Amino acid sequence: MARIVQKYGGTSVGDVERIKKVALRIKAIRDQGNELVVVVSARAGVTNELLARAKSLAANPSDRELDMLLAVGEQETIALTAIALQGVGVDAVSYTGAQAGIFTDKVHTKAKIKTINAQPIEKDLKAGRVVIVAGFQGINEEGHITTLGRGGSDLTAIALAAAVQADKCEIYTDVDGVYTADPRVVPDARKLPEISYDEMLELASSGSKVMQSRSVEFAEKYGVVFEVRSSFNYNPGTIVKQEVAYMEKVVVRGVAVDKDQAKIIVSNILDKPGSAASVFRALADANIIVDMIVQNVGRNGIANLTFTVPQVDTGKAQKALEPVLDAVGGGHVAVHEHIAKLSVVGVGMKTHSGVAATLFQALADANINIELITTSEIKISVVIDEDRADEAARVAHAAFKLNEL
Amino acid sequence: MARIVQKYGGTSVGDVERIKKVALRIKAIRDQGNELVVVVSARAGVTNELLARAKSLAANPSDRELDMLLAVGEQETIALTAIALQGVGVDAVSYTGAQAGIFTDKVHTKAKIKTINAQPIEKDLKAGRVVIVAGFQGINEEGHITTLGRGGSDLTAIALAAAVQADKCEIYTDVDGVYTADPRVVPDARKLPEISYDEMLELASSGSKVMQSRSVEFAEKYGVVFEVRSSFNYNPGTIVKQEVAYMEKVVVRGVAVDKDQAKIIVSNILDKPGSAASVFRALADANIIVDMIVQNVGRNGIANLTFTVPQVDTGKAQKALEPVLDAVGGGHVAVHEHIAKLSVVGVGMKTHSGVAATLFQALADANINIELITTSEIKISVVIDEDRADEAARVAHAAFKLNEL
Repeated sequence: MARIVQKYGGTSVGDVERIKKVALRIKAIRDQGNELVVVVSARAGVTNELLARAKSLAANPSDRELDMLLAVGEQETIALTAIALQGVGVDAVSYTGAQAGIFTDKVHTKAKIKTINAQPIEKDLKAGRVVIVAGFQGINEEGHITTLGRGGSDLTAIALAAAVQADKCEIYTDVDGVYTADPRVVPDARKLPEISYDEMLELASSGSKVMQSRSVEFAEKYGVVFEVRSSFNYNPGTIVKQEVAYMEKVVVRGVAVDKDQAKIIVSNILDKPGSAASVFRALADANIIVDMIVQNVGRNGIANLTFTVPQVDTGKAQKALEPVLDAVGGGHVAVHEHIAKLSVVGVGMKTHSGVAATLFQALADANINIELITTSEIKISVVIDEDRADEAARVAHAAFKLNEL
Repeated sequence: MARIVQKYGGTSVGDVERIKKVALRIKAIRDQGNELVVVVSARAGVTNELLARAKSLAANPSDRELDMLLAVGEQETIALTAIALQGVGVDAVSYTGAQAGIFTDKVHTKAKIKTINAQPIEKDLKAGRVVIVAGFQGINEEGHITTLGRGGSDLTAIALAAAVQADKCEIYTDVDGVYTADPRVVPDARKLPEISYDEMLELASSGSKVMQSRSVEFAEKYGVVFEVRSSFNYNPGTIVKQEVAYMEKVVVRGVAVDKDQAKIIVSNILDKPGSAASVFRALADANIIVDMIVQNVGRNGIANLTFTVPQVDTGKAQKALEPVLDAVGGGHVAVHEHIAKLSVVGVGMKTHSGVAATLFQALADANINIELITTSEIKISVVIDEDRADEAARVAHAAFKLNEL
């Protein structure tokens, strides 16, 4: 007998037929004598429907009311999932985030989990019930409903797995697991049986859409081993866990491409203390997340700052930079939206040399120009022409022999 | 400045356009300096949609999970209504039943309100906010969500009006108020400016669909004066209050017709102690609500029992009666579904004689046969042929001159 926490995303519980299938899947695992806590998201599309209604009523609804509204989506799914289980003869009980004792801070629409009181869930597990918990939501000290923001249901599952000391945590989604590259772009991409938290984090921040960074960070912090797998088949997925020695034998774990970035060049600024700071302060104040940053100093104390931001934020970024240009020497701003970021990730890099050289050579052989380079301990990212991005992914994937086991 | 509790039903908040109109209505009253607590129902149709999904997943879902599911409907509306108010510049905050401190007993799907802790609402009212509360729902001692059953949102409004000591309670619905008869049947029916709780109760149990009895009973018990009015216009409605002396000057307040009843005759039973008891015990055990009851004793100690039950329950009633027929002397059961109940109601009857005679004479003049009669202090009900029911309503309405002020 094991204690298992599962999480099913919005497409897995998209309609009553799919909820029925999820119920049968749960029943099969339950019938093997396991204890189950199941976290579900809102049915696919429901959250957007609710948001559209809110937007049609007010341009700037309060975050508290948005949370009250959005929490409805998961509450529907938990009840329907519990009812579907009852329909196949499994005793089940549903919990809202508040009932599951998920206490958060006060930041509506992107709350952080502070503590979980798992006692009520423990009681129902002991009584032999499958416990269905609403993902994405919690309650703050004042009793207001909060939501956890993007990727919130994954976070709920991982936090609950830690709180109930689960033996297993399974994140069911619409992909089979974590691949060495996007299989739609790189046909011989391979599903990874295992990956370290740090590699998963770098992939998440590099454009891999499997999971949000915060859930992986939370899992790493509390040592929750979890598996990413599909609810549409019974294939084994990818296990995400602490790095172990043998993982380092593989130098590069995977390749990720992010086409949603834009490159901004602030040129002709004075190379004096504080120039870069005032540029990035202005962007931070406008809530723009800057990813890669490179600074070149040319002749005569004139510098160029190059960095990437999410493509949706380029207009906001230009506006934010205008007032500071004079102070940094009257610089000029140029935006290049037609770029992509290619990243190779692997904990083995820490102890292997030549990874960068291999990547640059492979891209050069394919005549793909590199516009920008940044490196971390376990990742190398380059900015290239967006039109060449898919080809670059295939080239890098082959150069590191990622198709081989 | 007054403190006002309002309740808007499902059609009044049926879609975002209607919610916008409700918000403007609330804003106008708010702008006059009033304090407002607003109870809303689920959008029309939502509850049935949710129930249909549940039914497609399990034949007998648990009542606890049905409550969890149905509570979603009102939670959506409170958030949207608060957001709509914010959209027109009114500070508003929404409360689920639990957050509004509405504590109920443990009976899921038809819970009774035990207490209300109005402190959080008082705090928000003091802070100048309009408070939007989910109707129909509460929370029990164990923290489970409960729902109040049919007419639950009216009950929420009246209970809150008592708890916050409101100056006014307005029940907005899709009818203009309480009429002397159904205006679709009796063209010269007149809207009543006032009606007593007891008259309202008798009308509710006589087929008038304006409100459920339990809300009126609750209002009477706690002395909550309320007004039934339409959210689609600004006409004054009907005020429901404690009976006052001048009300008795009007002998008959209104006429109601109920076509959803059936008549059951259990004939040839022994006229001995316990016969009627065993018949009605069997019906009660099957959860069938019996309305009118008449017993005739014929010759030779053989009796007939005649009573009315909701038409939907006739099959269930026949089944429930089968096992007891032998014990009462082998009686025979006959069902007549093609009947209607006509009632005339008025507190003035208590002190006026001749009401029954006037009614019977009017029906006789129209050649309408009376099959069954029951009377209470302020009501006379007769069972007649369903085909003659509308005509009977017009005849009775005219006989008591209800079209005249």
